[in-house]
Amino acid sequence: MSTDKITVLLNWAANPYHIPLYLAQKLGYFRDEGIAVALLEPSDPSDVTEIIGSGKIDLGCKAMIHTIAAKARGFDVTSIGTLLDEPFTGVLYLKSAGKITEDFSSLKGKRIGYVGEFGKIIIDELTSHYGMTPADYTAVRVGMNVADAIKRGTIDAGVGLENIQQVELEEWSESQGRGRDDVGMLRIDELADLGCCCFCSVLYIGNDKFIKENPEKVRAFLRAVKKATDHVLAHPEKAWGQYVEMKPVLGDELNKKMFDRSLIYFSRNLGNVQRDWTKVTNYSRRLGVTDLNYTQNCTNEYLPEEGRGWPAEPVGGLFHEMPVLILIHQKHTPRLPKVATALTKRRL
Amino acid sequence: MSTDKITVLLNWAANPYHIPLYLAQKLGYFRDEGIAVALLEPSDPSDVTEIIGSGKIDLGCKAMIHTIAAKARGFDVTSIGTLLDEPFTGVLYLKSAGKITEDFSSLKGKRIGYVGEFGKIIIDELTSHYGMTPADYTAVRVGMNVADAIKRGTIDAGVGLENIQQVELEEWSESQGRGRDDVGMLRIDELADLGCCCFCSVLYIGNDKFIKENPEKVRAFLRAVKKATDHVLAHPEKAWGQYVEMKPVLGDELNKKMFDRSLIYFSRNLGNVQRDWTKVTNYSRRLGVTDLNYTQNCTNEYLPEEGRGWPAEPVGGLFHEMPVLILIHQKHTPRLPKVATALTKRRL
Repeated sequence: MSTDKITVLLNWAANPYHIPLYLAQKLGYFRDEGIAVALLEPSDPSDVTEIIGSGKIDLGCKAMIHTIAAKARGFDVTSIGTLLDEPFTGVLYLKSAGKITEDFSSLKGKRIGYVGEFGKIIIDELTSHYGMTPADYTAVRVGMNVADAIKRGTIDAGVGLENIQQVELEEWSESQGRGRDDVGMLRIDELADLGCCCFCSVLYIGNDKFIKENPEKVRAFLRAVKKATDHVLAHPEKAWGQYVEMKPVLGDELNKKMFDRSLIYFSRNLGNVQRDWTKVTNYSRRLGVTDLNYTQNCTNEYLPEEGRGWPAEPVGGLFHEMPVLILIHQKHTPRLPKVATALTKRRL
Repeated sequence: MSTDKITVLLNWAANPYHIPLYLAQKLGYFRDEGIAVALLEPSDPSDVTEIIGSGKIDLGCKAMIHTIAAKARGFDVTSIGTLLDEPFTGVLYLKSAGKITEDFSSLKGKRIGYVGEFGKIIIDELTSHYGMTPADYTAVRVGMNVADAIKRGTIDAGVGLENIQQVELEEWSESQGRGRDDVGMLRIDELADLGCCCFCSVLYIGNDKFIKENPEKVRAFLRAVKKATDHVLAHPEKAWGQYVEMKPVLGDELNKKMFDRSLIYFSRNLGNVQRDWTKVTNYSRRLGVTDLNYTQNCTNEYLPEEGRGWPAEPVGGLFHEMPVLILIHQKHTPRLPKVATALTKRRL
């Protein structure tokens, strides 16, 4: 017997920033849109694009760089919107351990934790700019357990988000009597001269065949999560209480703090952002993840009106001049401001 | 692009009794068997058989009564083994609340929490034996949040397992200064004259088409989880430490206690047990979930040698005399001992 239930696989164990998906379920927004949704959590984030891309799961969430990498590897996924916009991402460490400093070169000889394959690629590329090779540090694949591995001391540093792993480490450091300031982050966007943390923006993604065959379901899904996002932003305290009723395991101070820190990152219109896609496409090239044959796998056409606009058509081909423009721009503005959009709007 | 990854959907958020699945992953037992597995967690346990039965997910876990009910509804799932054998299951409540006693009739007028649809069917049937109708109590669907809802006071009682929700409530009661003994359980097996909690045995299940097309993968999967189960039983402390490394969220005293209480329930040979299947098939009939057309959807043929044996062939048809025999037997032995196997071995 078949089912009409849409399967949706999260990018990570359910955490505070997944609140729009869970409230769309709890508050009946999916049902009101005439769809039934099963929210699933992964055990290994590295499974997500492969499973969705092969069509075993319909929709899900994933960071932009992984969404691009998946397409480049032949997995049929497309971004249909944005959940979390440019969360600060970087290499987290404890200052008191005395091993790592604000100088990236201090990572030499250290154990650096990463989530999955592309975290390793990113670190390898970063270290190359600082005269290091992968042999100069020990990369440790830790999946979702970056913060825990730092606490246990099995890694000296690890890649994480400002609103999730950094909060967890700060709370823990405080409980250990060392204070929140003991947690340091080497921001990847600054180190890599990216100008934004958009490579780590968390997107709503879908299997291409599913999207093509079920455009109305995809629209209904996005209308429901948009409505839930609006609710979260309008009534954050109430929304958090509703989420905790559904997910009691998140009902502690730590998760509330992660939620508070996540609020600024929620995409307001859920749109894929041209500027970000262009930068991350170029970054992916630099990482050797994509080549000139890559066509951007994102669309805003299924979003409610306010999130539509670019890209009407996915963009492929020549982005090769873009990094130069961005790098020149960034020398003067470490965190790329909106004005950069003007530069990137021209399709090169 | 397709994937060889086998998707496995748990029956519940990852908890201590899922340890064999996670250690089969962590310790490389799946890889050693030549298979790749993605472990997924549900947000709503009621999604599981529908998603697996429709073929959207390959394998998973589910309680016996739900596995039977799914088949009866036309979802193509079959049990291929047993994870957890007869965990005590019942209606949990706090004695100090002064509302519910050891007399089942005390549930009248109360708010009773249940997980999904079949929990409601079970409670409705139980209450009918005590002169109540569904109108005599308020059923509240709480999904995976039974213990939390009791703590919050949004329900007066709720269906849960001795090794999971009861442990959580006991720990909480102690932290509230009321002691563990404040937690009471009305055992469903005793109330319903079942003679075992096998209706709640947690099984390894699979989609029928997937099983038929991938018999060697199913065998490899079961060999790997059997090996992990052996490891857990031989070295429980070490195994627990390994699991917590993988799932730090379980790294507290509460989950360790749940693990300790779960140890006796792990199926040693992973076999489906004829006695249990017969009783639960009859119970399903009594609940109106199945009829005479139902053929038992379980097989031991994919298990390692020691778990094989019955049933070589699924059993269908006439089980109608069985409940009588069991009920007679139970009058003398509240918790049905092994000797009952002799009675049920004859296929009626």
